[in-house]
Amino acid sequence: MTHTNWTKKDLIGIEDLSTDELEIIFNHAAEFKATMVRSNKKLPSLRGRTLVNLFMEPSTRTRIAFEIAATRLSADVISVMGNASSLIKGESLRDTALNIQALNADMIIMRHSAAGSAKYLSEAIGIPVINAGDGAHEHPTQALLDTFTIRENLGKDLRGKNVTILGDILFSRVARSNIWALSKLGAQVTLAGPSTLVPKNFEKWGVRVCHDLRTALADADAVMLLRIQHERQSSTHFPSLSEYTSMFGLNTLRAGWLKPDAIIMHPGPINRGVELDSALADSSRSVILDQVTNGIAVRMAVLFLCCSTLNQ
Amino acid sequence: MTHTNWTKKDLIGIEDLSTDELEIIFNHAAEFKATMVRSNKKLPSLRGRTLVNLFMEPSTRTRIAFEIAATRLSADVISVMGNASSLIKGESLRDTALNIQALNADMIIMRHSAAGSAKYLSEAIGIPVINAGDGAHEHPTQALLDTFTIRENLGKDLRGKNVTILGDILFSRVARSNIWALSKLGAQVTLAGPSTLVPKNFEKWGVRVCHDLRTALADADAVMLLRIQHERQSSTHFPSLSEYTSMFGLNTLRAGWLKPDAIIMHPGPINRGVELDSALADSSRSVILDQVTNGIAVRMAVLFLCCSTLNQ
Amino acid sequence: MTHTNWTKKDLIGIEDLSTDELEIIFNHAAEFKATMVRSNKKLPSLRGRTLVNLFMEPSTRTRIAFEIAATRLSADVISVMGNASSLIKGESLRDTALNIQALNADMIIMRHSAAGSAKYLSEAIGIPVINAGDGAHEHPTQALLDTFTIRENLGKDLRGKNVTILGDILFSRVARSNIWALSKLGAQVTLAGPSTLVPKNFEKWGVRVCHDLRTALADADAVMLLRIQHERQSSTHFPSLSEYTSMFGLNTLRAGWLKPDAIIMHPGPINRGVELDSALADSSRSVILDQVTNGIAVRMAVLFLCCSTLNQ
Repeated sequence: MTHTNWTKKDLIGIEDLSTDELEIIFNHAAEFKATMVRSNKKLPSLRGRTLVNLFMEPSTRTRIAFEIAATRLSADVISVMGNASSLIKGESLRDTALNIQALNADMIIMRHSAAGSAKYLSEAIGIPVINAGDGAHEHPTQALLDTFTIRENLGKDLRGKNVTILGDILFSRVARSNIWALSKLGAQVTLAGPSTLVPKNFEKWGVRVCHDLRTALADADAVMLLRIQHERQSSTHFPSLSEYTSMFGLNTLRAGWLKPDAIIMHPGPINRGVELDSALADSSRSVILDQVTNGIAVRMAVLFLCCSTLNQ
Repeated sequence: MTHTNWTKKDLIGIEDLSTDELEIIFNHAAEFKATMVRSNKKLPSLRGRTLVNLFMEPSTRTRIAFEIAATRLSADVISVMGNASSLIKGESLRDTALNIQALNADMIIMRHSAAGSAKYLSEAIGIPVINAGDGAHEHPTQALLDTFTIRENLGKDLRGKNVTILGDILFSRVARSNIWALSKLGAQVTLAGPSTLVPKNFEKWGVRVCHDLRTALADADAVMLLRIQHERQSSTHFPSLSEYTSMFGLNTLRAGWLKPDAIIMHPGPINRGVELDSALADSSRSVILDQVTNGIAVRMAVLFLCCSTLNQ
Repeated sequence: MTHTNWTKKDLIGIEDLSTDELEIIFNHAAEFKATMVRSNKKLPSLRGRTLVNLFMEPSTRTRIAFEIAATRLSADVISVMGNASSLIKGESLRDTALNIQALNADMIIMRHSAAGSAKYLSEAIGIPVINAGDGAHEHPTQALLDTFTIRENLGKDLRGKNVTILGDILFSRVARSNIWALSKLGAQVTLAGPSTLVPKNFEKWGVRVCHDLRTALADADAVMLLRIQHERQSSTHFPSLSEYTSMFGLNTLRAGWLKPDAIIMHPGPINRGVELDSALADSSRSVILDQVTNGIAVRMAVLFLCCSTLNQ
């Protein structure tokens, strides 16, 4: 596999990527996805490389996806969990990263609660940094897998396609990264949900904000649900869970408002019966498990491309 | 190594296995055991396969044994611990399993507190499921390693041999799986211990129930101790620890009631001085550490055989 | 790589090593370090070997360093954390080790809070035991990496060189192991710090004890700081943190008392602004990150050499 034109050491956010770079990632992801159905799923691409999963915020799901992607490329992966780790206790993020670099690691994949932390890290050290979610800023690999899945279903040219993101958007890094990705590729994004979670001023990003669910669903080619965070119920921004479900939960009746071939997406884990009806999650229009599979493929692409900028 | 006649995708319980299938497992285990003394213990059999250890109940011992078995077959292993895992929080077991399958995993090894959960999982997903203990139902690989060890010592034909299982049998999945395995192979099983832990109605399974220790030990070719669960002492079923030891603990005096060449077994970890005297645990008639070694061999066999049903 | 003359199964402490053995380790470490800058850092030396990291005391940093060293030699590594591990609950250290050996593991790397535990273990089992820190006794691989780093900077012949160890020495296994290593190699060791943490009777080991910082720094070729343990502040041995910093913290002013080419060392993680000024930690005379890198190289050497005593 060639990787002509890829020059970025790091993947910090979708905001930084050109449409050409998005295409390079998608093309590599498609090639890697084709290898995933083999009985021997391992490729020798990153053999002997050491990748460090630095998760300062817990996320089993994302950590495992990166671990599998790295392992399938034959890299060695060390996972460091931030909480309860003496590596980090009383140590600055920069010192932790410099120490990891001194272990001759080739790459750091970091999840952190502070927006901007991935960018900061990429400037502090010489090896590639992959942002696995930094506070409310960006979660670029999630947007890459979402967009890759949309292209699988709606075709590679997203110009003129309508994507509705529905739910708790206010502090969502997933929404932010998807807005960047979809806008760059020419899709029209609609943000939907209660006004407390989807403020009108998000329109500054060139998206449509819509508090009426029927309107938000009517012309969507894809509807992307966000997980409702139970733990934020006490927040003043947040309605009660049952109130949310009754007004914005996607159920069979409301799915009838969608175009017949519109697809339903969710980053997982699903709260069945809250933001999404169980029957819809398992229906033929759901591509939720494809998103999981594609998450491995796009992460393999990102690890492969960023590692290709290292000295051979 | 050939695996003719093996057709089972899953290993849910010993109850489901034919004597032919037990033989196939034992034969493979014997071949794998012979490879374990090499300096390079790795075989290429499952290279590039991804196995997921899904432990919804903690068990370092069993998890590590599966991890080593998988690694020796060159598989990649991802361990997911159920407690404190965001993979699972608020998610049904079926959703967790579907997500793991969507990662293109080739097999799930599951420990779960609910009886029947492994069976349920095997019907929900297409990839092999290995039961690493489901509630009080079955723990098939423990019974396989126990039976393998008995055959190593008493000979391959167990017909007419007497095996006494002694201890806290009431909710023991280890006892249940061993009763199935030993009965299928023609051994006579005696269950021994206080009547609160070994009720008479267990005789419906074709075993002997015996509350007199001397009688239970007299004709045993193998005596299999179960671990006394300290944490269950508050239960009304359970006598005090010292009362248990004084009446049913296996000590040097009582070991004299055994036949001279009878072997002593224990699934570990041993409570030295409680259910088993320390000197006996370390004596030449103890095969407890052989059980640990054989646990790797039989698990290699099970992983290898069930994976062989996958598309190549 | 040859390993002539290496006969030790275990690495328990520096006290047990001859200067010839120290040289063998340093020579191998130097060769391994040269391989660490390759893109494929893996060597086939320990392929198919199973190493167990048994950490009965938490230490992410040391555990990861051993894990990376083992992985780079192509060994398989199983990490077992002592706290919350059912492998160990209610089980003696000897039983845990016998069980690990019965898994056909080839080596145990152990961190334990009890001085003497590594020695005890090495006598209980037949496979190599590497001491990764046992109570206040020894931490031999830390001393090896420290001494290796000093030799990189001051030259291979340490006779007549002065090394000052500064800080909380009273219960420090790092200090103990370094005193052994440096003394065997002919360096003069000075222990410095407040008298409560650096008692005069340490002179029985042939070192100099000095409670005046300026004197302790004046002729040092290397100054090795120890981490101040915040958690020990309540101890009657320990001054207040700010009192320690004001009297013994190494800052730019006091670094001026050092010879111009003296190097500054720290085992990490650094408390910036407590025992060491931030600017000094990042200055050209700091070799702190080299210590981290060398920690991989010396551990590769130790694992390789001790494994070479196993049957091939």
